[in-house]
Amino acid sequence: MSKEKSFIEHGGDIYTEGKFKGINLVDFSSNINFLGVPKSFKENVYKALEDITCYPDLKYREAKFHLKEYLGAEIKEENIILGNGAAEIINLAIGALKRPCIVVPSFSEYETTARSCSEEIVFCSLNEDFTYNYKSILDNMERCDGLVIANPNNPNGGVIDKKCFEEIIAYCEANKKKIIIDEAFVEFVSRDNQSFIDSCANFKCLFIIRAFTKFFAMPGIRFGYGVSSDKAFIEKLSKTQIPWNINSFAETAIKTVLKDTEYINNSKVLLYKEREYFSQKLKGFKFIDKLYESHGNFFLLKLKETSGEELFNFCLSKGILIRRCRNFRGLNDSFIRLAVKSREDNNRLLEVFMNFEKVNC
Amino acid sequence: MSKEKSFIEHGGDIYTEGKFKGINLVDFSSNINFLGVPKSFKENVYKALEDITCYPDLKYREAKFHLKEYLGAEIKEENIILGNGAAEIINLAIGALKRPCIVVPSFSEYETTARSCSEEIVFCSLNEDFTYNYKSILDNMERCDGLVIANPNNPNGGVIDKKCFEEIIAYCEANKKKIIIDEAFVEFVSRDNQSFIDSCANFKCLFIIRAFTKFFAMPGIRFGYGVSSDKAFIEKLSKTQIPWNINSFAETAIKTVLKDTEYINNSKVLLYKEREYFSQKLKGFKFIDKLYESHGNFFLLKLKETSGEELFNFCLSKGILIRRCRNFRGLNDSFIRLAVKSREDNNRLLEVFMNFEKVNC
Repeated sequence: MSKEKSFIEHGGDIYTEGKFKGINLVDFSSNINFLGVPKSFKENVYKALEDITCYPDLKYREAKFHLKEYLGAEIKEENIILGNGAAEIINLAIGALKRPCIVVPSFSEYETTARSCSEEIVFCSLNEDFTYNYKSILDNMERCDGLVIANPNNPNGGVIDKKCFEEIIAYCEANKKKIIIDEAFVEFVSRDNQSFIDSCANFKCLFIIRAFTKFFAMPGIRFGYGVSSDKAFIEKLSKTQIPWNINSFAETAIKTVLKDTEYINNSKVLLYKEREYFSQKLKGFKFIDKLYESHGNFFLLKLKETSGEELFNFCLSKGILIRRCRNFRGLNDSFIRLAVKSREDNNRLLEVFMNFEKVNC
Repeated sequence: MSKEKSFIEHGGDIYTEGKFKGINLVDFSSNINFLGVPKSFKENVYKALEDITCYPDLKYREAKFHLKEYLGAEIKEENIILGNGAAEIINLAIGALKRPCIVVPSFSEYETTARSCSEEIVFCSLNEDFTYNYKSILDNMERCDGLVIANPNNPNGGVIDKKCFEEIIAYCEANKKKIIIDEAFVEFVSRDNQSFIDSCANFKCLFIIRAFTKFFAMPGIRFGYGVSSDKAFIEKLSKTQIPWNINSFAETAIKTVLKDTEYINNSKVLLYKEREYFSQKLKGFKFIDKLYESHGNFFLLKLKETSGEELFNFCLSKGILIRRCRNFRGLNDSFIRLAVKSREDNNRLLEVFMNFEKVNC
C-alpha cells in the first residue's frame, strides 16, 4: 500500500476559480448550513476578542462541560476529545488503526489518513443504490481492527439502519475492534435519534466524530470533537495532541451555539422544506439520471448524457461552484454533489440547470 | 529515555486559581504584549465572521503572501509552514529530530516533544549567568542531529550573539544538522537585526519559529509559523499536517496586524520604557538576589531568603499570578519569572512586592 498522500480534491475551493479572480461564486460544493453563522456567536464575538489575549485553558474544562450538557446520554467530560476541526479527530482516530475497513464512497480524508498510518486498508463498498452493505461490513471486520463509516454518509446522505447495525456493534465490542462513526452531518437528519451518541455509554467500541463545520456553518472556526466511553482510547489519542489546540473563538462558539435552540430548530425546519423543494425540482431535469435519498443537507446526483466536467464548467461560467465526484473512491465523473442552500440560491442553480438543459439536451 | 509526557506547567493558567473561582487575576505569568490585541485586527474581526462560513484556502496562499512580505529577506512562500500555534511547529520540527541538543533552561515544550519523538536528548546548559555556552553547544552537536535554541531565550530573555554563533551554523550547515531557533519573542528585542531570518536564505540548516502569541498579544488565536530555505524539510513537515489547520480569525490577523506599523512601533517604544522602569524598581527589593538582563518582555529573578512558592502564594492572595520556575530544567523554586506589563499593572505588582518585603524581610 502506497504511503504517499493521494491527490486531494475537496469541496469549497472558492479561491482558485473565485476569490483570486475577483469572482464571488455561489458555493454548492461544500455542505454548509445555509442559515450561516449563528447570531448567538456573532453577538459574543467581542467576548472572544477579550479572551484571545490569554492562553485558552489547557484542559478546556468549560468547553467540555458545555459539550457534555449538549450531548446528554450519560456522556462525561472524560469521554470527549477536542480537535482543530474534525480533521484532527479523524487523523487521530483513524491513525490509531492498523487495518481499517473504510466504507466507500465517502469523505476522502479517511483514506488519506489511513494511507499515511495504516498497514493495510480494506474498502467496503456501499450497495449500488448507496445503502450500506451490512453483511459485507461484518464479513470484512474479521480481518480489520476498526471500521470507518459516516452517518449520514457523504456524498449520498444515507443513514445507518440501527437495527441492521446491531450485529456489527456486538461483534466489534466482543472482539475489541473500533467503530469510528463520522456524524458531521447527523444534526441535519430529520428522523429522531439517528445518532449513535446514545449507544456510547454501553459500547466502548464506538467512537463518534462531530463538528461545528456543517450544522453550525463554521468551517473557518476549526472545531470538531470525538466521543467515546473508552477512556483509555481517549487518553491515548489526547496524549499525542499539541497543547492549546482549540482557539478562543471556537471556545466562545462552544459556549454559545450549543444552547442556541432557536438556531438549531430553525435550521432543521428550513432545511427539510428546502431539501424537499430542491429534490422535487431537480428530479425534473432530463440530464439527471438519479437523485439519491438524502438525510443530509446535500444530494448526490447521477448524470446522463453529460459529464461532471461539462456541468461543472457550465455552472462555473455562471458563477456557481458544484462538486464533481470523480475523486470519491467508487464514483466517477458521472456523479455530482450539490448542497441544499437557501430558496434564492437553489432557484439560481435551478435556472442555470434549465439553461444547461436547453443547450445540451 | 522515558517516552511518557512529563508533568507540564505553563504560565497563563488564569483558570484554576482565577476564573473558575470568580477572581480576575492580573497575569504576570504569561508574557503577552501589554498593549493587547491590535486595533487593526479588532476592526476587521467582522471580515473573519463572514469568512468562517467558508473553508479556509487549503493552501493558505494569501496568508503566506502576507508573511513573505513581512519577513522580507528573500523569503518565499514555499519557505513558510503554518501552524496551529507555535506549538504545532515546535512539535513538527523537533519531532523530526532523532537526537536533539536542547539548550536549557528553556520552554518546556521542546523537551516534552523530544520525549515523545526522539531516541536520545542531549541537554546543553546555559552558563551560570544565563548566557549561551557556545563552546559546549558546538561540542555537543557532534553527537546530535539538531539544535533547539530560543532567541531570546525564555525564561531569562538573553539573545544569541551572532558572531559567537557563526561557527555553530557553519558546522551544522556542513554536516547537515538542523538548527531550530524559536524566535517567539524576537520582535521585542531592541537591538536591530537580532533575528536569524536574514540568514535563512544562505543556510538551509536554519529553521526559525515565530508566532502571533507574544508580540501581537494573541495566544488565543493559535497561530505560529516556521521558516526555512530547506524546501524539502518544509515539504516533509507539511505532509504530516491536517488540512485547514489555520482558522479564519488567524487568517484575518495575518492579513491585518503584520502591516500595522503603528502597533508594532508603539509596542517596542512602550516596552523598552516599561522594561527599564520595572527592572530599576525590582532591583531595589531585598528578597531579590538577581535580575538577569532581558531582551524580551519578561524578567527572570533569583530570590533570596524566600521561595517561589511563598512569593507565588502571597501574590495570588493579592490577585496576582506570577510564574514559578521549578519545572524549568536546571532551575529550582528560588527562581520566578515576571512579564513586563503596563505601568499601572507593574506598579500594582511592585506594591504587592513591597508588602511582601515588609512582612517577610
